[in-house]
Amino acid sequence: MSSSATNGVAGDHTTTAINAAAAAGVDKGVDFANYFCTYAFLYHQKEMLCDRVRMDAYYNAVFQNKHHFNGKTVLDVGTGSGILAIWAGQAGARKVYAVEATKMSEHARALVKANNLQGVVEVIEGSIEDITLPEKVDVIISEWMGYFLLRESMFDSVICARDRWLKPTGSMYPSHARMWLAPIRSGLGDQKMNDYEGSMDDWFYFLDETKTYYGVDMSALTKPFSEEQKKYYLQTSLWNNLHPNQLIGSAAMIKEIDCSTATVNDILDVRASMSSLITTEETRLCGFAGWFDVHFRGSKENPAQHEIELTTAPSEDYSTHWGQQVFLLHPSIHVSEGDNLAINFSMTRSKENHRLMEVELSCEIKQPSGRLLPPFRKKFYIE
Amino acid sequence: MSSSATNGVAGDHTTTAINAAAAAGVDKGVDFANYFCTYAFLYHQKEMLCDRVRMDAYYNAVFQNKHHFNGKTVLDVGTGSGILAIWAGQAGARKVYAVEATKMSEHARALVKANNLQGVVEVIEGSIEDITLPEKVDVIISEWMGYFLLRESMFDSVICARDRWLKPTGSMYPSHARMWLAPIRSGLGDQKMNDYEGSMDDWFYFLDETKTYYGVDMSALTKPFSEEQKKYYLQTSLWNNLHPNQLIGSAAMIKEIDCSTATVNDILDVRASMSSLITTEETRLCGFAGWFDVHFRGSKENPAQHEIELTTAPSEDYSTHWGQQVFLLHPSIHVSEGDNLAINFSMTRSKENHRLMEVELSCEIKQPSGRLLPPFRKKFYIE
Repeated sequence: MSSSATNGVAGDHTTTAINAAAAAGVDKGVDFANYFCTYAFLYHQKEMLCDRVRMDAYYNAVFQNKHHFNGKTVLDVGTGSGILAIWAGQAGARKVYAVEATKMSEHARALVKANNLQGVVEVIEGSIEDITLPEKVDVIISEWMGYFLLRESMFDSVICARDRWLKPTGSMYPSHARMWLAPIRSGLGDQKMNDYEGSMDDWFYFLDETKTYYGVDMSALTKPFSEEQKKYYLQTSLWNNLHPNQLIGSAAMIKEIDCSTATVNDILDVRASMSSLITTEETRLCGFAGWFDVHFRGSKENPAQHEIELTTAPSEDYSTHWGQQVFLLHPSIHVSEGDNLAINFSMTRSKENHRLMEVELSCEIKQPSGRLLPPFRKKFYIE
Repeated sequence: MSSSATNGVAGDHTTTAINAAAAAGVDKGVDFANYFCTYAFLYHQKEMLCDRVRMDAYYNAVFQNKHHFNGKTVLDVGTGSGILAIWAGQAGARKVYAVEATKMSEHARALVKANNLQGVVEVIEGSIEDITLPEKVDVIISEWMGYFLLRESMFDSVICARDRWLKPTGSMYPSHARMWLAPIRSGLGDQKMNDYEGSMDDWFYFLDETKTYYGVDMSALTKPFSEEQKKYYLQTSLWNNLHPNQLIGSAAMIKEIDCSTATVNDILDVRASMSSLITTEETRLCGFAGWFDVHFRGSKENPAQHEIELTTAPSEDYSTHWGQQVFLLHPSIHVSEGDNLAINFSMTRSKENHRLMEVELSCEIKQPSGRLLPPFRKKFYIE
């Protein structure tokens, strides 16, 4: 049952990718039911196509660096509606392979034709791990980023594509990616705590009713129910587009990825120790926000003429469909300007679903006086 | 990969069940990801346990028919939290086998122990198709009903359990089930049409933007997008708890199932021709509502002392977590008292997911004058 390791594929990185998938026991059908199916809806594609920050970044990356595309061969990993493949074709690519795992491939093919690129863009339905191309390519372009960069674990497929199909001097679009974490204030924590407490009040009412009317004592389930609800309301990270004034300290970089060289091993287990300085007077540390940015810089041998950045950081002017992932503390902690947070961060894949993540975050707060607040350690789920 | 057909099982009915599953190409892992996983959450169990109509019916069925349980062997198919198995034990069963496919089995085991029935109720984690019991049983009890009775296709598993494990003179709890359909009025139709039209307005704005700013003509996707949205907003049946005054005509029975004899073939394809008389003056036929009831009558050899009914029909006093399934017409049709609807109904399983349903409904309306309104034929999805 454990698969995607069907093709005999060379390359150290790819072997790692396949071993990782095999180790995680990924069943293709299950993965499709849990994950790929979403991307088969045009409604979902439209949401991504309406994200102006995302669209502008890729559009500018392609059209301000036409020399990377003009007369070249390009591979688009997970083409969806085909937009990136079409842009690559419009920028003058000789040939674009647009690979898509879902039935969205049929719509992509229609779109390619409607935009008169059927001679250039070839849409291939299949997993990138399974398909074969007739040649190596100059550029791999892909919009593979999930919430907080790595959710969905789609970068594994981009790594696999790179190791199999990118020429040694080829370019990755994007070429670099970074993950960030910053302390925040937010009213969401109180709201979620209220939801949790409300759910537990309901539970105790339910216990009484079930005992009184139906003669069954359900109190043995109080602990597991409370744990399930805590996980849901208090430990699951939230999607949010924060206002920059909700950031109460400096953002710390968790991870930098060079897309030309990163291996699956590099992203399986993301660990970082970093510090953040509180920059706001007398406030509450309600949690942390995580986001990412990616850069389009071309390759060492063939750098971009115009470097483009796509950032999902909190912004007054823009928001993205990725938003930020918010990890809430219960209760919040009083902090003030000059307090220093020493943070240990780790993110691993969920054992049940390799496309979801588990985060551990521990933190020690040192006040300017040198006084230490009690350290804390929290576990979160990115679902 | 296509399975659940692993055990060598005798019995015509069971073979049919297995063939049906195999024909549908059901992958166990996928089925778990799509279906069973929900039942592993206590929150979801609690929703079912808080449904007083459901709870009262099963409670009364067991405790008003103790002779069926006292000193007997019982099998609970899909025990969930274990409530039915515990009641069977409390009603004096000698032995109860409580089978559950998900990890909820562990909570059921804890609950059995907390209610001092560990000597009587044995919780078995596994699919009913896979597990083996040391003996045949006197009673099979199960709460297998999905929306509009057959959604989830769980009755297949009950049939399999019956054919393998029920003694020839044993009783099914419930023993009978019926599906109903009635004409309704509802404001939901206008609401959904507004939603659909709003979504299409958004789409045309999106087309303009994408052409103007990103140089790609997406109009080739208008037709498939509109079809996707029509399916979602207009053709997918809705969960609703209707008020009885929303029924504008007589309810017609679609199907009656004798749980002691029904085969999977009997429920694979539900077809009925029936009529309904409009009983309300000058109103609009906005669609149809489907619901079910089940009865607990014991067996021919061993009838119930007190017959119990569980109905999910629209009611002023009660609502259930099943509600009714509403199939909306766009546009609605003017009808009046005395109009006669001749309805052809068919319901089959979705090819993509055998636990979801597709409905075809055609209807001819004859006014008391003998005049016929233009007939219509609609397709719906129960998702």
